[in-house]
Amino acid sequence: MLKPLGDRVIVETQKEEEKTVGGIVLADNAKKKPQTGTVVSVGDGRTLDNGQKVAPVVKKGDKVMFDKYAGTEVEDNDNSYLVLHEKDIVAIVE
Amino acid sequence: MLKPLGDRVIVETQKEEEKTVGGIVLADNAKKKPQTGTVVSVGDGRTLDNGQKVAPVVKKGDKVMFDKYAGTEVEDNDNSYLVLHEKDIVAIVE
Amino acid sequence: MLKPLGDRVIVETQKEEEKTVGGIVLADNAKKKPQTGTVVSVGDGRTLDNGQKVAPVVKKGDKVMFDKYAGTEVEDNDNSYLVLHEKDIVAIVE
Amino acid sequence: MLKPLGDRVIVETQKEEEKTVGGIVLADNAKKKPQTGTVVSVGDGRTLDNGQKVAPVVKKGDKVMFDKYAGTEVEDNDNSYLVLHEKDIVAIVE
Amino acid sequence: MLKPLGDRVIVETQKEEEKTVGGIVLADNAKKKPQTGTVVSVGDGRTLDNGQKVAPVVKKGDKVMFDKYAGTEVEDNDNSYLVLHEKDIVAIVE
Amino acid sequence: MLKPLGDRVIVETQKEEEKTVGGIVLADNAKKKPQTGTVVSVGDGRTLDNGQKVAPVVKKGDKVMFDKYAGTEVEDNDNSYLVLHEKDIVAIVE
Amino acid sequence: MLKPLGDRVIVETQKEEEKTVGGIVLADNAKKKPQTGTVVSVGDGRTLDNGQKVAPVVKKGDKVMFDKYAGTEVEDNDNSYLVLHEKDIVAIVE
Repeated sequence: MLKPLGDRVIVETQKEEEKTVGGIVLADNAKKKPQTGTVVSVGDGRTLDNGQKVAPVVKKGDKVMFDKYAGTEVEDNDNSYLVLHEKDIVAIVE
Repeated sequence: MLKPLGDRVIVETQKEEEKTVGGIVLADNAKKKPQTGTVVSVGDGRTLDNGQKVAPVVKKGDKVMFDKYAGTEVEDNDNSYLVLHEKDIVAIVE
Repeated sequence: MLKPLGDRVIVETQKEEEKTVGGIVLADNAKKKPQTGTVVSVGDGRTLDNGQKVAPVVKKGDKVMFDKYAGTEVEDNDNSYLVLHEKDIVAIVE
Repeated sequence: MLKPLGDRVIVETQKEEEKTVGGIVLADNAKKKPQTGTVVSVGDGRTLDNGQKVAPVVKKGDKVMFDKYAGTEVEDNDNSYLVLHEKDIVAIVE
Repeated sequence: MLKPLGDRVIVETQKEEEKTVGGIVLADNAKKKPQTGTVVSVGDGRTLDNGQKVAPVVKKGDKVMFDKYAGTEVEDNDNSYLVLHEKDIVAIVE
Repeated sequence: MLKPLGDRVIVETQKEEEKTVGGIVLADNAKKKPQTGTVVSVGDGRTLDNGQKVAPVVKKGDKVMFDKYAGTEVEDNDNSYLVLHEKDIVAIVE
Repeated sequence: MLKPLGDRVIVETQKEEEKTVGGIVLADNAKKKPQTGTVVSVGDGRTLDNGQKVAPVVKKGDKVMFDKYAGTEVEDNDNSYLVLHEKDIVAIVE
């Protein structure tokens, strides 16, 4: 298992199904969209300049949307994960 | 539904009607103009270095003007949204 | 009406009359000059790292001089405005 | 022996076995993967602006995953080590 | 009159007389020299991160030496001024 | 004698003996290695933003390893020294 | 007389005599060497973010070694000086 450090969060990525109109892939539209995934593990958070620790607000199981080119891809037991800094997570999908 | 993280704000974008003179689009003028939209969701705010949280000053329903190239476009249930950092919001339109 | 956010200030711009000598425009001179305008609206100010809010020192009605290429032009009801960060205001013209 | 300074951590690197399918090396996939190693020595940590010292969270013996191009390679008694800043350590492999 | 904002200082510039040897201008030498001027107006100073205000140490009437390419030139009633940030003032000439 | 200022440290440099295999210099390998030296003098340390002084952790006589291209070479009485910032010292060799 | 502002220090520069071997200038060697000079005047020091003032540690009369390309050259009454930020002073020569 991977335990992320600091403000890092590990998400299991999940490709958006491509949007098509009559079978034609809408390439232009797809480029604008950030990706989503499910949080599988979160770090202990970042340390402020006054020594206080700020825990991430996302938690295991949250479905999140993140900036498209953020993070580092890692593979572990045939699954694909993405290690992100929490600041690269844009929103929680509820 | 999308819940933005940190100092992020989600706005439903709203294209300015193009200004025309006698049916001619004023292209030059359009370039200078920032866009406007309506806030649909706000994050919990950013954390200062002393650990204090600063809530965004805009709230759901506010009509806001933002920097033209700021933010990330997302689509959700056929609507177009923009995820912005609050600092990219220039003014509230009252 | 536009209510600027944070340390932003909205000024109604006011082109300097071009300086001419015997009808000839002094192009070189004009390049060096920052522009001036009248403050029509100010934000609540910026938040310091200790959470304290610092209100802008300029106020509605002040004639100000600002860096030539600073700010974002906006149009509202046929008037031309400039949304500036207060740090781009160089001086108050008294 | 090498005692790293500040927030530095020394890891004994350990190349991932190349993943192959039917004997063919999957070059593209390999590029995305960060490397792993075992921590052999940690510094005393970094000093915050308030003078407080923050000890690294990794400790001797931890298997860690780090950013691929981070750190400085050093050799010591025929072994290969990598001197990393703790922020370049992505996760602990448990 | 111009009242500079923040840590800005307005100086009336004063070209160094060109140094010549037997009527020949010493171009190379001139390049190295910063310029000097007389302070005509100072701002209220900059605000530190703890909210404290730090007044400029130069005052009206001081002859100062400043970095050659610093500041913004402004004209006011046929006089040439330079609006500088105080940090661009190198020394007081006594 | 040279007394370094702030967080600076002066080390007497000491070239690694080139590693050879059967008399052939291993050029590629040599490039990756940082250099080592012996500390001859340390500054009083750096000043934090809260005014506190942080003394360097290395002391006279320590054998240290530093980033290869860091520091300024100085010569003093036929000896070669390197003036380094403490942050460029990677590890103490024990 | 020149009174430097903030953390600035004025030194009277003093070219190292070129090192020669049998009358041949050692050009390569000369490039590596920082220059030295004598402090003639020091500023009041820099202001920390907490408002505290930190006086320079060098004082009038100190012989100092500084980074070769640092500072601004000024001339005053036929003497050549260099206005440096204190952080560009590498060491005190004792």
